[in-house]
Amino acid sequence: MTEDRGLDRAVGWFRQQPNMAERFAIAIRRSFDEVFDGQRTGRYSLDQLSKVEKTYVGTKVEIIVQAEFGLRRGHRMDYLVAGEEVDAKWSMRSGGWMIPMEAVGELCLCITADDAKSTFSVGLVRAQSGRLRSSRNQDKKRRLNDEGMSAMAWLERDGLLAENLLLHLDAERRSAILYYSLSGQGRVNQLFRKVHAQIIQREVVLTVAQQDDGPKRVRDARKHLQPEGILILGHQGNHPRIAEALGLATPAKGSWLASRVTETTRIGPGSIEIEGKNWRLADRSDPVGPGPHSY
Amino acid sequence: MTEDRGLDRAVGWFRQQPNMAERFAIAIRRSFDEVFDGQRTGRYSLDQLSKVEKTYVGTKVEIIVQAEFGLRRGHRMDYLVAGEEVDAKWSMRSGGWMIPMEAVGELCLCITADDAKSTFSVGLVRAQSGRLRSSRNQDKKRRLNDEGMSAMAWLERDGLLAENLLLHLDAERRSAILYYSLSGQGRVNQLFRKVHAQIIQREVVLTVAQQDDGPKRVRDARKHLQPEGILILGHQGNHPRIAEALGLATPAKGSWLASRVTETTRIGPGSIEIEGKNWRLADRSDPVGPGPHSY
Repeated sequence: MTEDRGLDRAVGWFRQQPNMAERFAIAIRRSFDEVFDGQRTGRYSLDQLSKVEKTYVGTKVEIIVQAEFGLRRGHRMDYLVAGEEVDAKWSMRSGGWMIPMEAVGELCLCITADDAKSTFSVGLVRAQSGRLRSSRNQDKKRRLNDEGMSAMAWLERDGLLAENLLLHLDAERRSAILYYSLSGQGRVNQLFRKVHAQIIQREVVLTVAQQDDGPKRVRDARKHLQPEGILILGHQGNHPRIAEALGLATPAKGSWLASRVTETTRIGPGSIEIEGKNWRLADRSDPVGPGPHSY
Repeated sequence: MTEDRGLDRAVGWFRQQPNMAERFAIAIRRSFDEVFDGQRTGRYSLDQLSKVEKTYVGTKVEIIVQAEFGLRRGHRMDYLVAGEEVDAKWSMRSGGWMIPMEAVGELCLCITADDAKSTFSVGLVRAQSGRLRSSRNQDKKRRLNDEGMSAMAWLERDGLLAENLLLHLDAERRSAILYYSLSGQGRVNQLFRKVHAQIIQREVVLTVAQQDDGPKRVRDARKHLQPEGILILGHQGNHPRIAEALGLATPAKGSWLASRVTETTRIGPGSIEIEGKNWRLADRSDPVGPGPHSY
C-alpha cells in the first residue's frame, strides 16, 4: 500500500472536528429538507423530487457541508481541507459517486445517505485512474471500482441520520394527516392526533401545514385537541416538567410532542397535577375525554 | 384570431389576483436569493451559479409561484389555474422558454427576469405546434417562434424586480465589502460604511456576513461605526422618527439604512436631537467624527 499524505491530512482534519459525524448528519438532513421545500410543496420524500431536484440535492449537500465545516473553496476542486484540494461527491447510494475527468487523481469526499434506513456514510478516497471502472456515462464520468471502494477511508459508515418522520409513518396515518381536502390547520390537528410520544420537528409541522406560521398552528391545535385529552408539549413554561413527570421525551425549542392523557386518582410517578386535577398518560382502553385547558 | 377560452380564463384569473405583478416579482426575487444561498456561499449573482443550479432556478420559481398564488398541482401540467392545466416555464431571457413535447398545445406560464436590469416579465401562451420553431434541442424541446411570441398574453412586461444591491454596487465598493480576509463582522461593518442612504435587506446582510445572526452583526456594526459618525437605522424604537427627520427612507422590519451624521447648531428640518445634541446628515466635506452612542 502506498503512502498518501494528502489523504491522511484531509482525513485527520475531519476526524479532529468536534461532533464531525453529527455535523455531516445535520448537513445531509438539511439538504434533503431544503430541497423537499415541504412548507411550500408538502413533500417529504426523495421519490417526490424531479430529476433536476435530485441532481440539485448533491449541490445542496456540497454547499451545506462547506458552510458547516467552514471550508474554503479549492482552486481546482470544491474545497480546501488542511491545504488539500478535495472534491465533494454525492450519490443516493454507496458506490454510486460519479467521478468526472477533472477529478481523476484528486481527493474525493464521498457522501451518501438512505432516508428510508435513516443512515448516512462519508468517506475520503483518492480517485486514481486504477480505482475507477473503465465504463463511462455520457458525461464521461466513472464510478469507483472494487479497488477504489476498498481504498475508501471512511469517516463514518452507516451513521445515524435524523429520522424523516413523515416518510416513516405507516401509510394509513400519513394519508390521514396529509389528506388534501383538509385545511393546513386541519392537517396539523391530524398530525398531533395521530403521532404521539414522538418528537415532532418544526420542519414536519411546516410540511404538514404548508404555511409560514407553524408555531401558531401548533398553539391552535392545542385548543382543538383539548376535548380529546391530547396534550401538545413544547420547550416552554411547565412543558418540560410535564413531559418528565409523564415519562415522555422533552422537546427542544422548535419541536413538539403530543400525548393523550386522562384523569387519575393515583398521585405519584407517571402522574402530574394540572389545573387542580391529576393526569396520567391514557392508553387505548381509556375512553376519550377532555384534557387540561392550560398548561 | 381564434378564440381560446382556456387562455382567457387563466389570464383572467391571474389578473384578478391582488397585487399580482408584485407577487410574481417577490417569487422571482426569492427564487434567485434562495438558489444563491448567500448566507452559506456569499454569492449574489446568477453568473456565480453552477449549471445545475441555473436549471434549478426554474424549479424554484415554479414552486414559489405555486405557493404564492395557492395554485393546485395540475394532472398533466404543473398547475391548475381556474380549472385550466398550465405549465410553468422559466428562462433567463424572454423568448428562451423551452417547450417539451408533452406541453405542445398546452397553456404555458412563461416567466423571465433580468437581475442586472431589475426587470421581470410574465405571460401566458398556448404552445401550439405552429407557434414553435422547427429546431429542437437534444431534449426535443422547442422555443416559441415569432407567431408564438406575438400570441403571448402578457400579465406583466418589464415589471420592477427588487434590486439586487450587491450585484448593482460598483466593483470597487463591492470588493471592499466582500474582501475575503475580513471576518463576517468586518464585512458587515464595511457594508454599512460603504452603502449609505439606501435600504439594505436582511438577505444582503446575511450574504455579506455569511452567518446566521444577521441582526446581531448589525447591532455590533452600530457600535463599531459610531466613532465614524455612522448611524444604522432599523424599524424599531426611535429609528423611523430619526430617518424621517433626516429625510431618509424608513426601513421596514428586517431591513436597515446607514448614513453618516455630524453635529449641527441649526435646529429644524433635516436635523434631529439625539442624546442632547443636534445632528444632520454629513456630506463629503464634513470631517469624520463620532456619532451618537444610543438612538
